Amino acid sequence: MAARRVIGVDLGGTKLLAGVVDPELGVHHRTQRTVIGFDQRRLIEVAIDGVAELRAATGGIAIEAVGFGVPVLVDRRGASPTAVVGVNTPVQGLAFADVMAERLGLPVFIDNDGNTSALAEHRAGAARGASDAVVITLGTGIAGGLILRGELYRGAFGAAGELGHMVIELDGPRCHGNCPNHGCAEVYCSGTALVEEARRLGAMRPGSGLERLVQSGALAGPLVTELAHDGDAAAREAIALIGERLGVVVANVLNIFNPQVVVIGGGVIAAGELLLAPARAVVAERVLPFLRESVPLVAARFGMEAGMVGAAALAYDEIERRALA
Amino acid sequence: MAARRVIGVDLGGTKLLAGVVDPELGVHHRTQRTVIGFDQRRLIEVAIDGVAELRAATGGIAIEAVGFGVPVLVDRRGASPTAVVGVNTPVQGLAFADVMAERLGLPVFIDNDGNTSALAEHRAGAARGASDAVVITLGTGIAGGLILRGELYRGAFGAAGELGHMVIELDGPRCHGNCPNHGCAEVYCSGTALVEEARRLGAMRPGSGLERLVQSGALAGPLVTELAHDGDAAAREAIALIGERLGVVVANVLNIFNPQVVVIGGGVIAAGELLLAPARAVVAERVLPFLRESVPLVAARFGMEAGMVGAAALAYDEIERRALA
Repeated sequence: MAARRVIGVDLGGTKLLAGVVDPELGVHHRTQRTVIGFDQRRLIEVAIDGVAELRAATGGIAIEAVGFGVPVLVDRRGASPTAVVGVNTPVQGLAFADVMAERLGLPVFIDNDGNTSALAEHRAGAARGASDAVVITLGTGIAGGLILRGELYRGAFGAAGELGHMVIELDGPRCHGNCPNHGCAEVYCSGTALVEEARRLGAMRPGSGLERLVQSGALAGPLVTELAHDGDAAAREAIALIGERLGVVVANVLNIFNPQVVVIGGGVIAAGELLLAPARAVVAERVLPFLRESVPLVAARFGMEAGMVGAAALAYDEIERRALA
Repeated sequence: MAARRVIGVDLGGTKLLAGVVDPELGVHHRTQRTVIGFDQRRLIEVAIDGVAELRAATGGIAIEAVGFGVPVLVDRRGASPTAVVGVNTPVQGLAFADVMAERLGLPVFIDNDGNTSALAEHRAGAARGASDAVVITLGTGIAGGLILRGELYRGAFGAAGELGHMVIELDGPRCHGNCPNHGCAEVYCSGTALVEEARRLGAMRPGSGLERLVQSGALAGPLVTELAHDGDAAAREAIALIGERLGVVVANVLNIFNPQVVVIGGGVIAAGELLLAPARAVVAERVLPFLRESVPLVAARFGMEAGMVGAAALAYDEIERRALA
């Protein structure tokens, strides 16, 4: 039997991650692009370029389809899913899948990146076998994916799961981009929030590695995480603060969904237990008593690649759905 | 064909409402008891007394079963659903349905009152025909009920939908009773919160009807609502404040679930548009752009009786399930 392959693309707020993925969700080739500040045209070009590079790298194995996970609200009410609002990504109003299918000459499928991450973790990762699971992706923003009664829950139009835009502070700061809200979770525990807190704490902790990182002008989330893993107390403090706020979000999620497992993915989860241990402590303090029992809070198995791998899982699902239809 | 009847009981934090209900969810007889400050034993006795009164009132039509909606987390993992945590009601640890069935000599079914309210509104009320709907009940506390993909969503153990214990203020005041959390929605827009805000505003608005109500010592939510309907500006201000906070909760619910409709029930909804209009204005300001389109925010059709009527709907459902099993 011939090897089967699709391409999964995670088109995030700051970077594009793409990979050639087999039906067991093993990744065979990867590529990456920076997309910060790109307009819609450049974003589409860089996505096409990334896919072309991977098709060339497969050495003759045909790619069956391409799946995209994108940080946008998707409207599934029409004939073709349309990206309707991108908080951090300028693709609103675009029939993204149709446009990309035309350009690539392949079937193209799209979903919110929080949904694709949840698909990956449910199919073959940290939420495998769970009937009810919530996957929270901490990247430039915060994405959510809901597995309810064994299936991805998309809501009435296709836009459910925006856990990053749950207000956790009534009169908190204005949220990002196209979100008009205040005090959203995204303001408090995304990768963007980590960088902001690192900047603030770096200035307050003279002599720390974090102070030097801030002064270098190269401050970025992954470098804060590296410093923290290396033992820098100020960097650990920044990550613990994000973890504590994440704990409030997770307690809300447990009270709302009563899931079997909560999975944390996205760039920020590179901090691992430095993030999750403070989050668990806050959950234990704040969640309703019964709901704190035995609900694991764990790192995404696919880590920063969950959105990409799940985009591939989406492509396989949709190919199968079409075959059955 | 003989008339069929069950009894539905809403055993709330401050009162018991019970009714004889037909299969079309019409209510034929009603009774009511105050239960403030009752311990478990007295609560059970008053419930038995209420059911006995209604059985006597049916004039010979046999009652097939009794359904209870109770403000507790329910654990459905065992053979019999058990009330595990009552934030405002002292029935924790009790196999409530088994105990009541034994005492009443009838089949007894139990669910969280937020769930029974959602059942009533979905079956025959404001969420009728919706695939995805969220019902928020503003009483002593706040209960939630989730209709997802056309069915009540109960989560992994049976305890989902605790929307009242969604934190909307990170370091807000301590929540009520057995909830160890801070800044829960329940602290900001329950009936209890309405009374607190009315007391505060009454003292600040000399000459108002609300000031006189506070000074009379008879302050209670329904009287604030009456004053507001009569045009008292201070009472309207108190209700509008609760409505604005409710708007934040509803915006969260739209971002999380992308439902077709959000229904508000419980005692506080007696304020009607005085509550809902300010809530809608806040939703329009704060929800993600796409999700504000055409999602109605409406009053429960069954109003304060939704929990009771839904408890009867639960009883009919469970009788049918047993018949099919």
